[in-house]
Amino acid sequence: MQKHHPIPAFSEITPDAPITEESHGARAKCLQRLIQLGMPVPRTLALPFDAVRLIAAGQLPDTAAMLARFGSGALVSVRPSSQNGAWGGPGSLLNIGMNDARHAELSAAHGAAAASALYLRFVQNYSTHVARLDPDLFETAGTPETALRNALRAFETEMDEPFPQDPAHQLAQVLRSMARAWEGTSARLLRQARGAPADAGLGLVVQQMALGIGRGESGAGVIQFVDSATGAPQITGRYLGQSQGRDAVAEGAEGALYLTRDPRGPSLEERCPEVFETLAAFGDACRARLHEEMQIEFTLEDGALQVLDAVRVARNSRAAVRIAVKLGEDGIISRAEALQRIAPRALSELLHHQVDPHGARDLLARGIAASPGAACGRIVFSSNAAQASAARGEACILVRRETTPEDIRGMHAASGVLTERGGITSHAAVIGRGLGLPCIVGATGLRIDAHARTLTTSDGRRLAEGDMITLDATCGEVLAGAADLLEPAVDESFRTLMRWADAVRDIGVRANADTPADARIARDFDAEGIGLCRTEHMFFEDDRLTVMREMIFADTAEDRRAALDRLLPMQRADFTHLFEIMQGTPVCIRLFDPPLHEFLPHGREGLRNLAEALDKPLSEITRRAEALSEFNPMLGMRGVRLGITMPEIYDMQARAIFEATIDASHNGDPVVPEIMIPLVSAKREVELVKARIDAVAASVRTERGRSFDYRLGVMVETPRAALRAGDIAQHTDFLSFGTNDLTQMTYGLSRDDAGRFMSSYVQAGVYPEDPFQTLDIDGVGELLHIAAERGRAARPELVLSVCGEHGGNSESIAFCRAAGFDYVSCSPFRVPVARLAAAHLAIGDAQG
Amino acid sequence: MQKHHPIPAFSEITPDAPITEESHGARAKCLQRLIQLGMPVPRTLALPFDAVRLIAAGQLPDTAAMLARFGSGALVSVRPSSQNGAWGGPGSLLNIGMNDARHAELSAAHGAAAASALYLRFVQNYSTHVARLDPDLFETAGTPETALRNALRAFETEMDEPFPQDPAHQLAQVLRSMARAWEGTSARLLRQARGAPADAGLGLVVQQMALGIGRGESGAGVIQFVDSATGAPQITGRYLGQSQGRDAVAEGAEGALYLTRDPRGPSLEERCPEVFETLAAFGDACRARLHEEMQIEFTLEDGALQVLDAVRVARNSRAAVRIAVKLGEDGIISRAEALQRIAPRALSELLHHQVDPHGARDLLARGIAASPGAACGRIVFSSNAAQASAARGEACILVRRETTPEDIRGMHAASGVLTERGGITSHAAVIGRGLGLPCIVGATGLRIDAHARTLTTSDGRRLAEGDMITLDATCGEVLAGAADLLEPAVDESFRTLMRWADAVRDIGVRANADTPADARIARDFDAEGIGLCRTEHMFFEDDRLTVMREMIFADTAEDRRAALDRLLPMQRADFTHLFEIMQGTPVCIRLFDPPLHEFLPHGREGLRNLAEALDKPLSEITRRAEALSEFNPMLGMRGVRLGITMPEIYDMQARAIFEATIDASHNGDPVVPEIMIPLVSAKREVELVKARIDAVAASVRTERGRSFDYRLGVMVETPRAALRAGDIAQHTDFLSFGTNDLTQMTYGLSRDDAGRFMSSYVQAGVYPEDPFQTLDIDGVGELLHIAAERGRAARPELVLSVCGEHGGNSESIAFCRAAGFDYVSCSPFRVPVARLAAAHLAIGDAQG
Repeated sequence: MQKHHPIPAFSEITPDAPITEESHGARAKCLQRLIQLGMPVPRTLALPFDAVRLIAAGQLPDTAAMLARFGSGALVSVRPSSQNGAWGGPGSLLNIGMNDARHAELSAAHGAAAASALYLRFVQNYSTHVARLDPDLFETAGTPETALRNALRAFETEMDEPFPQDPAHQLAQVLRSMARAWEGTSARLLRQARGAPADAGLGLVVQQMALGIGRGESGAGVIQFVDSATGAPQITGRYLGQSQGRDAVAEGAEGALYLTRDPRGPSLEERCPEVFETLAAFGDACRARLHEEMQIEFTLEDGALQVLDAVRVARNSRAAVRIAVKLGEDGIISRAEALQRIAPRALSELLHHQVDPHGARDLLARGIAASPGAACGRIVFSSNAAQASAARGEACILVRRETTPEDIRGMHAASGVLTERGGITSHAAVIGRGLGLPCIVGATGLRIDAHARTLTTSDGRRLAEGDMITLDATCGEVLAGAADLLEPAVDESFRTLMRWADAVRDIGVRANADTPADARIARDFDAEGIGLCRTEHMFFEDDRLTVMREMIFADTAEDRRAALDRLLPMQRADFTHLFEIMQGTPVCIRLFDPPLHEFLPHGREGLRNLAEALDKPLSEITRRAEALSEFNPMLGMRGVRLGITMPEIYDMQARAIFEATIDASHNGDPVVPEIMIPLVSAKREVELVKARIDAVAASVRTERGRSFDYRLGVMVETPRAALRAGDIAQHTDFLSFGTNDLTQMTYGLSRDDAGRFMSSYVQAGVYPEDPFQTLDIDGVGELLHIAAERGRAARPELVLSVCGEHGGNSESIAFCRAAGFDYVSCSPFRVPVARLAAAHLAIGDAQG
Repeated sequence: MQKHHPIPAFSEITPDAPITEESHGARAKCLQRLIQLGMPVPRTLALPFDAVRLIAAGQLPDTAAMLARFGSGALVSVRPSSQNGAWGGPGSLLNIGMNDARHAELSAAHGAAAASALYLRFVQNYSTHVARLDPDLFETAGTPETALRNALRAFETEMDEPFPQDPAHQLAQVLRSMARAWEGTSARLLRQARGAPADAGLGLVVQQMALGIGRGESGAGVIQFVDSATGAPQITGRYLGQSQGRDAVAEGAEGALYLTRDPRGPSLEERCPEVFETLAAFGDACRARLHEEMQIEFTLEDGALQVLDAVRVARNSRAAVRIAVKLGEDGIISRAEALQRIAPRALSELLHHQVDPHGARDLLARGIAASPGAACGRIVFSSNAAQASAARGEACILVRRETTPEDIRGMHAASGVLTERGGITSHAAVIGRGLGLPCIVGATGLRIDAHARTLTTSDGRRLAEGDMITLDATCGEVLAGAADLLEPAVDESFRTLMRWADAVRDIGVRANADTPADARIARDFDAEGIGLCRTEHMFFEDDRLTVMREMIFADTAEDRRAALDRLLPMQRADFTHLFEIMQGTPVCIRLFDPPLHEFLPHGREGLRNLAEALDKPLSEITRRAEALSEFNPMLGMRGVRLGITMPEIYDMQARAIFEATIDASHNGDPVVPEIMIPLVSAKREVELVKARIDAVAASVRTERGRSFDYRLGVMVETPRAALRAGDIAQHTDFLSFGTNDLTQMTYGLSRDDAGRFMSSYVQAGVYPEDPFQTLDIDGVGELLHIAAERGRAARPELVLSVCGEHGGNSESIAFCRAAGFDYVSCSPFRVPVARLAAAHLAIGDAQG
């Protein structure tokens, strides 16, 4: 004869019971700790994961035996207890054991209204969560007694049987319902999305109810000792007399008390000073012994305090940093632990304005959250309008089909950027992140009519230039009107955390910075130098653009040189300024990279103006502009190809860099500039450029009678440069991987054009991730490995780094550390994220 | 006391003298063989390479001792003798030893005129080639006697000394002059360009003069036994009485005789039948024993025949094939030797018309020889005009700034294509080679005004539509007017050579063929199947283009499918036709590849017509056309990305292929189609497409009640596909490398845009070769190696091939053989070249 598989035993939570987070879950373990700390926790039983799995599979637990542990007539609650509270789980259920008989007893003791309210709450919760009946049926009005009668009748009508009266049956049904809810598909997907493993278990705790009603001081409340929004020490919470559970903090909880003395009303501190003192001591104990800021749920029954539960205080990123740093400073947790408690990507929330989550939201459209933060401003449809708006001191949002290099000035002037097209690495996105400018791209539901200066949403709402909108670029939502914003939080706690991170990390972090403004942010975020200074942006300023165009349309190398001679002092001033800001740290300057046609005006009108300005026939300008146009500009005449074909450009830039090096070294550490050659695909390209740059350096040394050092390196952006890194390293001090372009070429995929299908491609699992967001370890990563290995074999002291958009990501930093790279370089606003991510990796390694 | 380094000994050429090509050169060795064959060769001395090197370095040879070997008063000639006659060398010099005394003697014997002519020739040659005086000074008129006097006086005036009278001095100066000429920079560069090693040596032969003057039958001539232009057996040559050297074949050699009986005039055969017989026997002996068709230089002195020299008959490619095949067929050389005597690239000369090298050339412009051959026709500036011209039966040359896919029909209609822009792998070039259409691209000196329908050359000549021009696309020259053309020469000798090549080669050769016309050429050139059938060209025909555009602008997947349903029967007919032509051989079809915007009209007018045709508002058409435009189409929404986003397209193509497979298998071998997925970069792309194609195959099998086989493979065009070949091979039967795109992505270089700087880049040695012409072994080649290795590791039976433009090159074939590839695929007109190149490689390996 077969025996039933015995249900694994439940345990009563006592100081010595064998309760672990891995077997019974975090809540059960936390309750044991509270008990160990001497807190008055009502009797609690814990069901381990194994038991709950069997219950879900259909075995009924011996609930009569469980209830026997609480004594006759006790009511109980059931709460979920998974291994990690953040993974979620079924809701708690209170007052199990209520039935007609207990109702009568409680009515006698506390009055019919209070007893009926308790019973009603149980009938409602049981009917909707256990029997899965329509909640609307149980939303009844009237006195608690009437409502209770209606609810019981509704249950009987729907279920064709009276409301169950046997507490053991009730408890069994509750346990089975919660066990099954955990196994449901949507619950599983949800918790996996939050990081739970596929086989995560659920424990359940069955606790004797503290009713919170009675003649003496009775009620329930929650208390915490820090502010959830700032992390500052501050006792917050509410207490409500004659109530249960979290009623005190529910909306519209009339009569709830403040905890500390408060001018707005009475407080628990005043009404029950001893209870308040005890709770404060409990808070201190939790902090010291549980190493965490906890929110405590408590009940008073005739003045007697009971602690029902304690959970980690909910917190935003700013509060998380402040709490972790304070715990670390107080020696309650190690600095490593404090660092590990902050997810690197959470930091970016601190560096930018955020839309107040409690404010109203009027959603206009969704797009890709390309550069985090929030901004309010009036709609403008052109860079000129953005500049005019900035001149008037009015915040504006630049709205474009997509942005081009000509929009740089407009982007500088705007508070945020919104584009209809483009992906996470489109022009607007890259520049936006570089500037720390909130940016939403690929808002495909919008239709922009730049001519009529209107914006139409997918549901037909039309906005015009000058209308106010808000970008919530942290989540990619466009809102109507000016939403409430929260300020950035680069405070002392943040700086302390960063110092701790720097003390443990073992890979360098530099910033990509093109302008003095960028460089100042980089410096402010303690970047260890500039890893990528793109010089082309320097040529888009108004006065320079004209000279640049003269250079492009020069008929001879001499004319070209003459135009470049006029650009030289401006470039030199740029670099001097940059070197002064970055004094004492390395600055890596990428030589001119983009195709020349990016500097030409678009359209017939622009060409006509240009012809006039250059005093040349329109036909010639048109013909030469056409000759410069390219089928695939990404793969065309740019980078070192331009540098070799028109060597005067790099000559001028090298001279500007060297003269600035001397000028900026006058007072202070000598600057050692790094010069980086873009788009290399063959060793000979490096040889040719190096020979000319060395010659320029020699000239400047002679002319100025000053010596200086510099380093020459290559930006590895083509698969061929990676494969031939052994050759190339023979002539270079460093290789820096431009993983954006390298990804484009390895996949044969233009980042500007990929936006149209990337999200559907990733959703369909064709690519596991967008390779422009997450470094493609299998493909691009292998090229990086090959290049690093060959480069270092040829030149062991070769400096290796990544300066693409991937530079700031944890996955990329992990890859770079493992591959022995020297540093990563990322947008200034990503620098703190990268510093913390690097620290996490080092700590992880140290812990094995 | 130091001794002078002794000059290495000269040798008299006797049957047993130690003469080799490696020590004394080819001419010396050839003369020894003639002597061994019993031919009457005048006494000849040979100076080895070592001796000539010392002479060039300044050591004077003992010319008195040399002259002593010829007896007193003998005149001699000096001829160069390098290891390979094709490497060139200094010109021969005759009549050394002439001086006033010999002049007097010869005047007495043969008359003053004859003697003076001999002396004059020597003085002229010595003065210009040895003393390096201005030739104009020695171009004197009058009787030989007068001219001689003037020449001697000119020498004395210029040199300030009388013309040297000492034969030993004369000979020494001649030897030194020739030795030094060999060491000159331009001579060295020239011979290295012809394949000579850097240390190639020069030998010299000093031969007793046969004067060719006398009382009996005296004179000189040359004879050969095959026609230089066709290789057909035919005695040709000339003989001129009372002449020396090659006078008989010089221009305006009045009185020269034909050799065989000829209605145009008297012949040597008639005048001296025995001499003629003897020469014919000498020709046979050369052929049999020297294994080559030789041209013999001979002299008669008083009826006595002397053979002075024999050289390999000059020949064009057509004659070369015929001569080699005949020698092979006659068992004089092995078939392997016959194959090795033909350079693969020489074959393409046989497959196309050629400009007659003897005709007049009026050069208009130079460009890149993108597709070989020659064509005459009237200029047209648009595809429509080309079609109209073809309809009238008039040959035309399509002249465009550059061609686009819309020009396909125009290219089919034209006899040749000329573009101002583009490189060796531009659209015009690739399609031109595919069609076997003569094509010159990148003729940057031309300015095309398509609007005014004029063409202006760099020297200001203006041509209009309808003017006749000739493309000499074998050398990249545009000629005015209609030049004389030579016909292609795909004759029986050519076919025999190809059969021999197929018998030894060990790698497959297929053709890239998109149309039935291409396929027929491929079949005619014995391609072993189609390695790449691009399907997109099929959608550019007029009726299909309209349906294609309906498909592109469909609002729903259903509408798209409806349009595709109308394209299905056309596609099926295409494939059925192709399969029938290629019956018994594999046909590899690449699924739809280009971005959709290539199928849209350009300009406002075209869009307006399209809007009318589709009955949609212009604004919608414009908006959607703009939405389809891309920054970098090469890296955009094309290939498998389109196939996954709009799966109905590949569904239709797969169905067309499978239905055609059944239809074409009705009578004959079953067709096994190969389906190739373009632009793959991730395994999952292959899985998704494979699942749908398998499903289509299952449907067609069920509907038709017929079974059939097919193979699925991937076109490896992205570096990532190469790196991940191990994954990808799990789902594929074959990998075919599209080395064009792979080169573009590995270098980060668009072939369409590279034309602007590629030639200067290669000239500057930045790239050793244009990687679109010559496979980049170091970079792209490594990716091929990686992919082959990983693919075969995952699936040992994986079929590997190259189907890019590189497929037909010897270097690429060598690479593919070494890497264990199964076949190469190239343009139909390159198939014979590839077959021969593959044979050469196999023979080379077999010979170790």
